[in-house]
Amino acid sequence: PGSREAVRKLKASGLKLRFCTNETQATREKFVEKLQHLGFDILVSEVTAPAPAACRILKERNLRPHLLVHDGLVPEFDRLDKGNPNCVVLGEAADNFSYQNLNEAFRVLIGLENPILISLGRGRYYKETDGLKLDVGVYMKALEYACDIQAEVVGKPSKMFFQSALVEMGVEPQEAIMIGDDIVNDVGGAQQCGMRALQVRTGKYRPCDEQHPEVTPDGYVNNLAEAVDIILKQLDK
Amino acid sequence: PGSREAVRKLKASGLKLRFCTNETQATREKFVEKLQHLGFDILVSEVTAPAPAACRILKERNLRPHLLVHDGLVPEFDRLDKGNPNCVVLGEAADNFSYQNLNEAFRVLIGLENPILISLGRGRYYKETDGLKLDVGVYMKALEYACDIQAEVVGKPSKMFFQSALVEMGVEPQEAIMIGDDIVNDVGGAQQCGMRALQVRTGKYRPCDEQHPEVTPDGYVNNLAEAVDIILKQLDK
Repeated sequence: PGSREAVRKLKASGLKLRFCTNETQATREKFVEKLQHLGFDILVSEVTAPAPAACRILKERNLRPHLLVHDGLVPEFDRLDKGNPNCVVLGEAADNFSYQNLNEAFRVLIGLENPILISLGRGRYYKETDGLKLDVGVYMKALEYACDIQAEVVGKPSKMFFQSALVEMGVEPQEAIMIGDDIVNDVGGAQQCGMRALQVRTGKYRPCDEQHPEVTPDGYVNNLAEAVDIILKQLDK
Repeated sequence: PGSREAVRKLKASGLKLRFCTNETQATREKFVEKLQHLGFDILVSEVTAPAPAACRILKERNLRPHLLVHDGLVPEFDRLDKGNPNCVVLGEAADNFSYQNLNEAFRVLIGLENPILISLGRGRYYKETDGLKLDVGVYMKALEYACDIQAEVVGKPSKMFFQSALVEMGVEPQEAIMIGDDIVNDVGGAQQCGMRALQVRTGKYRPCDEQHPEVTPDGYVNNLAEAVDIILKQLDK
């Protein structure tokens, strides 16, 4: 409760704001449409997602990707040169994960002197209405084993992903705070990157998170609205 | 040279003999036909291959397999009960490794209280006339990660595989000797099982095998014919 209003207040305060998601089945456009429909004041340019973060990395390192991703995600890579690929980008591709397609990605990698595999997440599986589905991490492990390499993972909790969000806002890690419901992917990942992080006691939060063996948030809040109130009070001081 | 004659001499000596192969694309029948065509005195009942070894294990442990294997291999499992599966058997399945098929195997495993995955080998890739192809080990790793389990590997160099061959002959490990060209899969695997092992300096043998950091054969021979001559001389004493 109060999340829509909290986002509005944050924006009015002048603080810089990014929405960080691990969504890789669709473009940011589709994702934002859904949230706008729920009444959120959100723009595509305010979303940090694995695909655009990967695009930034590809451009910086002059990488031309061979894509093995969901059809819905392909437009995110429209502006990149994909001829004569020198790396593979792997996303949650569902039925596109055929033997032929995986083999093609493998042949690109094994043919490279320095094989680079960029994976948009490391999830094992997720749930859809018709049952459990294998996620991108499973195919990442497959290609890692085939080529005896380590993938670079883009998306929470990777440091690289949070760094992308910071670069987009133009702020340093110690100037930023993460608010999330996932103790490892949101809180742990942001802290690894040098940011502070609050865990909300909503969504996928579980009471046992407060005894997590590796991650301790900088604070707990009951929900996003409370987090925003605390932050804005600090700002007033 | 002299391999066909060596096999004939071994059989005439009365020693028990098994042919151990990691072939999983076709039934033993197809494999034996090929060797018979090359002039070898070999019967299907003398071949130890991963699929029949897996069948033996499945029967012993009352396991009903869900199969994800090459179409050519399915007849090896004809006699097994495959209803209401309580394990998954994975072979080199090529185009049968679709997202849907892998997901189906995953759902069987994740739905089991004690998920059992039996993999017919752990190879990364192999070479065919039209290029490199992903092998069964890659999909084994994928399912291991998805379900957070360890597969049981049947086939050389697994101990279980050599034990199957010994059981089929009715001999103890210390009564048996392995002759092979693969320092790890043939020699190392057999020795792990308590057998002695000779490496032939033919086939995939490479001079650097003689400096292998982990495996030292009980002896080297120039070829199968020489190995058989040495063994039969011992027998005469």
